[in-house]
Amino acid sequence: MRFFSDNAAAVHPRVLAAMADANALDTAYDGDALSKALDGRLSDLFETEVRALWVSTGTAANCLALAAMCPPYGGILCHRDAHIQNDEGGAPEFYTHGAKLLLCDGEGAKLTPDTIRATADAIADDVHRVQPHCLSITNATEYGLVYRPDEVAAIGELARSRGWRFHMDGARFANAVATAGCSPADVTWRAGVEALSFGFVKNGGMSAECLVFFDRALADATLRRRKRAGLLLSKGRYLAAQILAMVEGDLWLDNARAANARAATLASAAGDRLVHPVEANEVFLRATPQEAAALRARGFDFYDWAAGEVRMVTAWDTPEHDVARLADAIDTL
Amino acid sequence: MRFFSDNAAAVHPRVLAAMADANALDTAYDGDALSKALDGRLSDLFETEVRALWVSTGTAANCLALAAMCPPYGGILCHRDAHIQNDEGGAPEFYTHGAKLLLCDGEGAKLTPDTIRATADAIADDVHRVQPHCLSITNATEYGLVYRPDEVAAIGELARSRGWRFHMDGARFANAVATAGCSPADVTWRAGVEALSFGFVKNGGMSAECLVFFDRALADATLRRRKRAGLLLSKGRYLAAQILAMVEGDLWLDNARAANARAATLASAAGDRLVHPVEANEVFLRATPQEAAALRARGFDFYDWAAGEVRMVTAWDTPEHDVARLADAIDTL
Amino acid sequence: MRFFSDNAAAVHPRVLAAMADANALDTAYDGDALSKALDGRLSDLFETEVRALWVSTGTAANCLALAAMCPPYGGILCHRDAHIQNDEGGAPEFYTHGAKLLLCDGEGAKLTPDTIRATADAIADDVHRVQPHCLSITNATEYGLVYRPDEVAAIGELARSRGWRFHMDGARFANAVATAGCSPADVTWRAGVEALSFGFVKNGGMSAECLVFFDRALADATLRRRKRAGLLLSKGRYLAAQILAMVEGDLWLDNARAANARAATLASAAGDRLVHPVEANEVFLRATPQEAAALRARGFDFYDWAAGEVRMVTAWDTPEHDVARLADAIDTL
Amino acid sequence: MRFFSDNAAAVHPRVLAAMADANALDTAYDGDALSKALDGRLSDLFETEVRALWVSTGTAANCLALAAMCPPYGGILCHRDAHIQNDEGGAPEFYTHGAKLLLCDGEGAKLTPDTIRATADAIADDVHRVQPHCLSITNATEYGLVYRPDEVAAIGELARSRGWRFHMDGARFANAVATAGCSPADVTWRAGVEALSFGFVKNGGMSAECLVFFDRALADATLRRRKRAGLLLSKGRYLAAQILAMVEGDLWLDNARAANARAATLASAAGDRLVHPVEANEVFLRATPQEAAALRARGFDFYDWAAGEVRMVTAWDTPEHDVARLADAIDTL
Repeated sequence: MRFFSDNAAAVHPRVLAAMADANALDTAYDGDALSKALDGRLSDLFETEVRALWVSTGTAANCLALAAMCPPYGGILCHRDAHIQNDEGGAPEFYTHGAKLLLCDGEGAKLTPDTIRATADAIADDVHRVQPHCLSITNATEYGLVYRPDEVAAIGELARSRGWRFHMDGARFANAVATAGCSPADVTWRAGVEALSFGFVKNGGMSAECLVFFDRALADATLRRRKRAGLLLSKGRYLAAQILAMVEGDLWLDNARAANARAATLASAAGDRLVHPVEANEVFLRATPQEAAALRARGFDFYDWAAGEVRMVTAWDTPEHDVARLADAIDTL
Repeated sequence: MRFFSDNAAAVHPRVLAAMADANALDTAYDGDALSKALDGRLSDLFETEVRALWVSTGTAANCLALAAMCPPYGGILCHRDAHIQNDEGGAPEFYTHGAKLLLCDGEGAKLTPDTIRATADAIADDVHRVQPHCLSITNATEYGLVYRPDEVAAIGELARSRGWRFHMDGARFANAVATAGCSPADVTWRAGVEALSFGFVKNGGMSAECLVFFDRALADATLRRRKRAGLLLSKGRYLAAQILAMVEGDLWLDNARAANARAATLASAAGDRLVHPVEANEVFLRATPQEAAALRARGFDFYDWAAGEVRMVTAWDTPEHDVARLADAIDTL
Repeated sequence: MRFFSDNAAAVHPRVLAAMADANALDTAYDGDALSKALDGRLSDLFETEVRALWVSTGTAANCLALAAMCPPYGGILCHRDAHIQNDEGGAPEFYTHGAKLLLCDGEGAKLTPDTIRATADAIADDVHRVQPHCLSITNATEYGLVYRPDEVAAIGELARSRGWRFHMDGARFANAVATAGCSPADVTWRAGVEALSFGFVKNGGMSAECLVFFDRALADATLRRRKRAGLLLSKGRYLAAQILAMVEGDLWLDNARAANARAATLASAAGDRLVHPVEANEVFLRATPQEAAALRARGFDFYDWAAGEVRMVTAWDTPEHDVARLADAIDTL
Repeated sequence: MRFFSDNAAAVHPRVLAAMADANALDTAYDGDALSKALDGRLSDLFETEVRALWVSTGTAANCLALAAMCPPYGGILCHRDAHIQNDEGGAPEFYTHGAKLLLCDGEGAKLTPDTIRATADAIADDVHRVQPHCLSITNATEYGLVYRPDEVAAIGELARSRGWRFHMDGARFANAVATAGCSPADVTWRAGVEALSFGFVKNGGMSAECLVFFDRALADATLRRRKRAGLLLSKGRYLAAQILAMVEGDLWLDNARAANARAATLASAAGDRLVHPVEANEVFLRATPQEAAALRARGFDFYDWAAGEVRMVTAWDTPEHDVARLADAIDTL
């Protein structure tokens, strides 16, 4: 029973069906009807004119956004536990040609204006120090916390006042929106976000994330960077099809709600063991090595996070009976 | 009737089926059973131990190979009409951190030891000039010519004697092997090739090319570069599935033969109009603007290449009756 | 007797004296009085407000300018024999993070609007091709030809109409201005040039070139790039002192005139042997290997350029009697 | 009275004289007799065969070394207060094409095997995390502490056991050796160091640092990188002359001893105010803003370091009477 991550979950049948349907089309790169529909469809979803590009991975989406927002000699403010800092194999440095990540603190990998200022204000404004040029937050965070619109807006206001660009890594954006119960617009561009890595792969897609530019001027150079990075698939229609299927009928929200509900079940069972509040689909709980071993012995697969902590992740397709069994197992530890 | 390119052809049903089958698996990145099977399956095909990595695009495959073979301060010998020089939006420079393409001549975009030496020997061996570090050829070439094993071996011998690495861009490798009638080994590692971008997308795949390292030592750093470029899909199993399906039962060769046969039909019709011999699935022929317009008026879609030349490309799925009609139309120009 | 190059000529005594005087100062980087005087002094010379930065080498000056003018995914139009293409060891690609040099033709390494258009117009405006973003000319050219103000202005107008940035490599700018007899302003910003690598090292300096931005907005990021490239010397005052000494009393022009006059003497002797008109301080002449050997046997040192051609370069300090002897020797070949 | 830094101290008269003497030479780049003498002269000093390259700045020396030691996708272990992390404007990332600095702790900016292991061992060995490839220490450290040979050797042994390359930033190497009283060999290659940025500029030079490779195999590619970075001065002889003059008669050690002695005088006066032991030529002491202002009012110039701390630096040429006055002023605060 797999609670290791949501990153290898099955592809939703409606996504698979949409890909099969795309086989009939025959225009290359992003010249097909599906790719061309992305701008409009995402503009509807976000209630404003956006540019929307398919990209094969979340890492690529994040790093294309950062490259559009930060010059090679600049710095990117982010949490010290951010995915871009720890889990992308140096991709931000590759795409930006060596920009420097400037690390900030914050409970549960969540930044606040205060923690951002603490890092930024310690950097002397001279030519010897790399200066901040942009800011990236992750919603939901690496620890499954959710930024609400007002929290994002406070950070957005700081960014605006300092002249920093503002990016949101939304690998689990769907889970965050499902929890916040807000409109996608409220927690992004209305709060100052200029580019969003809108994740679908963890949530029922196969190989398509959507890079959404609220500042549409950033898109043109990004189209060139996407090609230059070897990310412009000749049969892009199969990526566009995935995104459109996920957006259609709010499948993205339905799937996220399903994953979140499963995590909530585990959270209830975990009670005092919880390391962080469970706001999305990740559950971090305290467990001794013996307890972790006992759970594994019963067939549950999950991640050892830090000493005495484990991480369990649910997905849209996590079987409910697996969840029930794991909740029960946690309860009876 | 589309003869524009093979780059947007339909995905073969057996490939689609294999992808659907992969939905049951659930291990991320390249840890799944299908991804793990690539080394073995490609080793069988090439009759030697290889390392085989899935990559989403041919550009990425080429550029990962080049980055493994050339330091940032080095040079890459290639034909001046090579895809890496003209059609990858600067990706080779991105992946290699600014290596320089050193351009060689050759009829039909085909290099020979003589044309390579002409370029290389004109470069003074001092610190002011970028020195050649590797060599890349394309088989079949941009003009649809096919390198035979002895031709590759002659170039490989030159590369070996100069200490240059040797890469083959095989976006249409299947078409080349189908024509040459040789074993894949003969035209690659037995002829000195150390890395091959083995193309499947133009030939019935959806989004998976295979980067094959005959010099297996090059693979480890490439795994890191693939991640760093945002190319490590979390659901890599769907890429591996495509490659395995294409290799299974020699589907790759069957598809290439089908495409080549269609091109041969057009070549016969074109006769004296041919700009290059037709050895793979590309047909370059002389046509006045009026003639090109006449063909388009009859529903044929193709590419204006140079002044007075057009390019027609066939694919595994080009309908035979479309081919027959186009052959007829050319014949009666 | 050295006619190999002007790149190792002695440092002018007034430059050495100015450096010794700078020893009394003690502010680091470019915070000293001499460094701060550059903007003003060069603004006077060019009759407009400029930003002027000291840089240790011409390669660095060129490449900092190009990095300010061309994004990593862009292209730089230049002559195929340009120094940035052939003699800087890949520095343009390093500084620009992999921009591509787009090569143009032109007699004597001199570009014209026509030769530039021939290259630029052959580049399809799509995402697969690297697009021109800037243009770089060398004055005097690699073959010692001089662009006059109207020639530069014609190119500048083309650049402006296409939205390209415009850089001038002036490693031998002094020699060019001395010949053209124009004001420095006329052949630079009044003709559309936005950045000039103003060379002093070949002309009596030791280790200081001046990067002059007529578009002053380009300077701020360049200050950061200069630091990031390890080019911000802590004792920059010794570089500023060199430039100020060269500008003072038009030493730069006097030195260039001296060098040019010596080349003119050689040119007269060479007569029909000349490969290019001698407009600056470089003399290219036809000489058989036997003739070249004969000259060397008489103690003259020079460069074998192409088959049957040699290059002789004069400098501000080339002894006149050496020039006379060489002229005589050429005359009597 | 300047105690701001040693980075703008005067050039020693013997260095200036050596530069003037170099004016007679005339071979370009590093082909002159002085540049060619570096390998031998530094080999003598270090009692082993080395390759020694002049470089204009310490930043460039450090970053060329790091580029030789770390691939673009790799990581560089260093102290979180290291110059390469904080004061080089992103140059390490530029030269290495985006390698990541992996930050370690340590009192007084001094690393130990334990603090290095703490950082390194927390990095999971998978493709998502940037892996350590090299290690850089600074001797003397940013806080003026000195590594003794056995301390370096312990770190060198760790590096060797892990397969990491080992670099020493010796911007104040002279001050460290003067204090340690060891041979230069003992604290470098005999302790495992493979490359040393040997600083001369803070210690009486003008614009020449020496990059010393104990692993000589690293030098060849570095010659190309030096050119590619625009750091290959055409009149390199003036840089070589500086280094040779500094090494001649142990001027480097004499100057460092002079600077260290001045710092010791200040340290004695500072007593309990000292933040770190004074082992080289930097004095960090506690002073309230009022106290700092009082000192400045008396004509002393120095750096506000952290809250309640100031930094005072002595150089080879700091006038002894200024030192005496400052010592007195500190004493009577």
